[in-house]
Amino acid sequence: MTDKPIVGVVMGSDSDWPTMKEAADTLTEFGVPFEKQVVSAHRTPDVMAEYGLTARDRGLKIIIAGAGGAAHLPGMLASYTTLPVVGVPVKTTALGGLDSLYSIVQMPNGVPVATVAIGKAKNAALLAIRMLGMDNSELAEKLEKYHIRMADESIDKTKNLK
Amino acid sequence: MTDKPIVGVVMGSDSDWPTMKEAADTLTEFGVPFEKQVVSAHRTPDVMAEYGLTARDRGLKIIIAGAGGAAHLPGMLASYTTLPVVGVPVKTTALGGLDSLYSIVQMPNGVPVATVAIGKAKNAALLAIRMLGMDNSELAEKLEKYHIRMADESIDKTKNLK
Amino acid sequence: MTDKPIVGVVMGSDSDWPTMKEAADTLTEFGVPFEKQVVSAHRTPDVMAEYGLTARDRGLKIIIAGAGGAAHLPGMLASYTTLPVVGVPVKTTALGGLDSLYSIVQMPNGVPVATVAIGKAKNAALLAIRMLGMDNSELAEKLEKYHIRMADESIDKTKNLK
Amino acid sequence: MTDKPIVGVVMGSDSDWPTMKEAADTLTEFGVPFEKQVVSAHRTPDVMAEYGLTARDRGLKIIIAGAGGAAHLPGMLASYTTLPVVGVPVKTTALGGLDSLYSIVQMPNGVPVATVAIGKAKNAALLAIRMLGMDNSELAEKLEKYHIRMADESIDKTKNLK
Amino acid sequence: MTDKPIVGVVMGSDSDWPTMKEAADTLTEFGVPFEKQVVSAHRTPDVMAEYGLTARDRGLKIIIAGAGGAAHLPGMLASYTTLPVVGVPVKTTALGGLDSLYSIVQMPNGVPVATVAIGKAKNAALLAIRMLGMDNSELAEKLEKYHIRMADESIDKTKNLK
Amino acid sequence: MTDKPIVGVVMGSDSDWPTMKEAADTLTEFGVPFEKQVVSAHRTPDVMAEYGLTARDRGLKIIIAGAGGAAHLPGMLASYTTLPVVGVPVKTTALGGLDSLYSIVQMPNGVPVATVAIGKAKNAALLAIRMLGMDNSELAEKLEKYHIRMADESIDKTKNLK
Amino acid sequence: MTDKPIVGVVMGSDSDWPTMKEAADTLTEFGVPFEKQVVSAHRTPDVMAEYGLTARDRGLKIIIAGAGGAAHLPGMLASYTTLPVVGVPVKTTALGGLDSLYSIVQMPNGVPVATVAIGKAKNAALLAIRMLGMDNSELAEKLEKYHIRMADESIDKTKNLK
Amino acid sequence: MTDKPIVGVVMGSDSDWPTMKEAADTLTEFGVPFEKQVVSAHRTPDVMAEYGLTARDRGLKIIIAGAGGAAHLPGMLASYTTLPVVGVPVKTTALGGLDSLYSIVQMPNGVPVATVAIGKAKNAALLAIRMLGMDNSELAEKLEKYHIRMADESIDKTKNLK
Repeated sequence: MTDKPIVGVVMGSDSDWPTMKEAADTLTEFGVPFEKQVVSAHRTPDVMAEYGLTARDRGLKIIIAGAGGAAHLPGMLASYTTLPVVGVPVKTTALGGLDSLYSIVQMPNGVPVATVAIGKAKNAALLAIRMLGMDNSELAEKLEKYHIRMADESIDKTKNLK
Repeated sequence: MTDKPIVGVVMGSDSDWPTMKEAADTLTEFGVPFEKQVVSAHRTPDVMAEYGLTARDRGLKIIIAGAGGAAHLPGMLASYTTLPVVGVPVKTTALGGLDSLYSIVQMPNGVPVATVAIGKAKNAALLAIRMLGMDNSELAEKLEKYHIRMADESIDKTKNLK
Repeated sequence: MTDKPIVGVVMGSDSDWPTMKEAADTLTEFGVPFEKQVVSAHRTPDVMAEYGLTARDRGLKIIIAGAGGAAHLPGMLASYTTLPVVGVPVKTTALGGLDSLYSIVQMPNGVPVATVAIGKAKNAALLAIRMLGMDNSELAEKLEKYHIRMADESIDKTKNLK
Repeated sequence: MTDKPIVGVVMGSDSDWPTMKEAADTLTEFGVPFEKQVVSAHRTPDVMAEYGLTARDRGLKIIIAGAGGAAHLPGMLASYTTLPVVGVPVKTTALGGLDSLYSIVQMPNGVPVATVAIGKAKNAALLAIRMLGMDNSELAEKLEKYHIRMADESIDKTKNLK
Repeated sequence: MTDKPIVGVVMGSDSDWPTMKEAADTLTEFGVPFEKQVVSAHRTPDVMAEYGLTARDRGLKIIIAGAGGAAHLPGMLASYTTLPVVGVPVKTTALGGLDSLYSIVQMPNGVPVATVAIGKAKNAALLAIRMLGMDNSELAEKLEKYHIRMADESIDKTKNLK
Repeated sequence: MTDKPIVGVVMGSDSDWPTMKEAADTLTEFGVPFEKQVVSAHRTPDVMAEYGLTARDRGLKIIIAGAGGAAHLPGMLASYTTLPVVGVPVKTTALGGLDSLYSIVQMPNGVPVATVAIGKAKNAALLAIRMLGMDNSELAEKLEKYHIRMADESIDKTKNLK
Repeated sequence: MTDKPIVGVVMGSDSDWPTMKEAADTLTEFGVPFEKQVVSAHRTPDVMAEYGLTARDRGLKIIIAGAGGAAHLPGMLASYTTLPVVGVPVKTTALGGLDSLYSIVQMPNGVPVATVAIGKAKNAALLAIRMLGMDNSELAEKLEKYHIRMADESIDKTKNLK
Repeated sequence: MTDKPIVGVVMGSDSDWPTMKEAADTLTEFGVPFEKQVVSAHRTPDVMAEYGLTARDRGLKIIIAGAGGAAHLPGMLASYTTLPVVGVPVKTTALGGLDSLYSIVQMPNGVPVATVAIGKAKNAALLAIRMLGMDNSELAEKLEKYHIRMADESIDKTKNLK
């Protein structure tokens, strides 16, 4: 794998970074080169359109997009590109992120967004890695090891029940 | 008032027309010239961008936008124009339109959408007419008369309680 | 623009002020003269009726009304005036403001309220400014600049992702 | 008990009558004189105010008010009178009546509405009869008999389980 | 009015007291004699049954009952008495009190509970006072004065908007 | 196993029978003797109390109780007996059964109800059979066979995908 | 009763322990031998399958399983065993545990989970004890005493209302 | 592309087929070879485990899984494989599919499911095709053409607004 970003991690505001950083950390852990950027659907629609339209040509294979409230970023990016877009609903103070979830997951037929749990950006990264691992045996193996490590850690946690 | 459209009535799909037609009918009833068009945020993002960006120059004063599910059309149009955008959440079969409502009303600070009740496109038109009536005494008077007529009809309905 | 208030910012209680102050601040930032007042639909229904009935004659063009829980203020004001009324659902401790949202946005046909997101009073002000800017090129330009500034700030936030 | 109405049964529209008729029928069954009227908070706010302000002097002891969506009628009537107001949330197509329920029950401190279940206008009447029966032994006895009859009918229903 | 309790204030647990104390304080403020007691539908069903069955004979006119979660106390008391029962849904940590609200308000036809807002025990007391004031001109006058005082205080709050 | 009922199937009204009949049918299928009865928490609280208090002495081992809306029957029965009570939330027209579910499952500490899915009375019976099968090898074997049959039928259903 | 565990208390992660510890404490209080273990449906599906498949032969009579979010542990264990499985929905930060509740209680026909309230692991233990007490008079008596103690404590709490 | 299935379309029951057929039809339309099978997490957990464990070796690249209610199939499959799993929440009668959605999307960190809108199996297929198109220019081109066709059809729908 080269150093050229193949995953784009974008979010509506830097206030989403504490959530989205987990995606970045997990991609780093798996050695997947990525870029990160604030891209606001509502404040910078042109930047967003450009981001989506150029994504494939710039070498990206997957876009991970996080947003909260009326979260249009993931769905709009999916309109501008035919790459898979993973959506992360960011938690909100009033509605707990249910508004974000509905705005991201309930896409009409034709333009899907691969939605993960509210606030679970790590899973967005793991989902991207699964996609990349479809044809990349090295990543697939890393995922297998990651699963084994998760299992071991989980089994080991019984000792904390006291 | 000229015949040149000053309100744009747009919707994500022609399946929204039975809902949105009420907006058109009410604008007609008040003599407000309007145009109508299917504009899909997800299927035709460029058309949508163009629609928003040119709206003011084309003479529009208000955009009424209806959409269902992950309903991005009203909010995205509001990103492309500084005209007021009225959003109509269209009812959905799975979630009753709560997904549409959240996707339209929960806009982040900076880009508001004037949201009306789920499926109540008539109110979107009346809201637009209120806006136009701020400085248009003829429309304001029509609204006053409309209110008086509503009151009269309401009072008259008591006779149906049997 | 004169100093005479053209926007009325009202709320059900002074406990709504921390929320509604953002509307006042934004109107000030755009140089839109406004008045502010506690108007309780339930504790002072007569004051409310009077406020709505006299609003247009007193020179107001738009009313921004915030309330929480069974939030009747925006809808009732809209019944007493034909001016556009912008409703701000104030967050509540038990239901997160969903009760406020439903009480404000789900208005029956005939009397619309332009509803913004839960707690987003700044957007209520921006919506009012959009309405005023329909025929006011100075305000429209200020809005354009505001959008450009938002875009610039958004783009600049990428540097905070670390 | 005279024939002069002591309960007022009001509703936002004649479309609420199929729901509210159950209240009327139950009051009739218990021999409680009542009046019925369409009173729209939003279409006839003056009628509503007048209704609430004159209720006690006209001899009413209780108001039963049904409304749907952003249902302001019960709460606003409770603002105009110090008589007990019973609210009936009418079922809605989009949100099942949850909007009606929230708009009626979530009243702020100071102005209560005695809310019953969504669409259960019969219970509104029974609640009014309970109130009237606090100091009216005849009505109290009728209620006791009603409860006994309900119990007997309930017990008898086991035979239908086949 | 004698000192003999005419309102019973009961709750499922002493943990509901911080909520229910507002009812007690308001009844005291209006000079309405009341009793207070922990009555658990689930832990002491016999005490509850006895409470409901003897309420009228013991001189009570109204029961105010607060409970949280699967809140059966108000509805069950209403099954054991024909006096009006006012239900106060107590806020819960997981669901914000929506479980309490549904358990209290959604009573089947035949047995109504006069439900007030989540956590608003003061309104339960005011509702009881409205009921008592139907035929008690002294209490009715106190309520009128209370409304006037609320209105004055509300109007006075505008000065805090700064 | 004798013919004496060891499971009691009760419901708030005979209108719940179409739902609860599935429990009866499944108990019959497994040869578990049961009784069935309409027991209304709100219309016949004494019958309910008696039912719960005598259940164990009458030879019952488990009570299955179905109810809708403010569904107090399962929880109240669990207060009157120390036998396991299985609750079936019956679907409601306004809220889809969410009110039933909350009223049944959200029991306070001390008095549990074993809640199954909305409207899934068959699962209530299967849960009862699991309990009876803890120490009854014949029933345990029947359950094993039931699982095998379910598996076989499930596998066989692939042929219907066309 | 021997010391060999007859109840298995399992949970998806050690972060569920603060919730599930109440189940363990209550089982200890009633002298019911149990084992406890972290068993993750998603991280250790094989461990989970093995746990369910061997449960009966290892002498377990009941499994209590707690999990949060997309909580598959209780339902999957119920697929692997014919013993009764009690599910505890663990509270979540975004959705308050409603996601956990739905994932646990809404099981399809064929495979029931005995679900208790969100976060109420104590009730899961009490439910297990009720099941064990169906044929164990000693446990049944302990439960009776527990109920009497709860009643006494409840009655005694009235003195705290001040 | 060979005829060997590279996508597995599975569902909890054949009653999900009317929903899931749209996924099959879309894969066929794009020429993506797939297999389809009923795989029930709860009725055939071993079949499910086997399906997940062997998926990659059998040549699958993606699994699309639909299920309703406590929908564990997508998440459990994701536990047994490191391939990307796309989850389709199937609509339910009681809760509209919100239970399905929560059960599928709210996966804990470590094991993601790519969730699409309630009932939108077509989007699950399109998402799978996007994944396959990351490195397959032929599929990517087909997607581009599909987007162009969607856009053309959308634009053409304006003529139906009458």
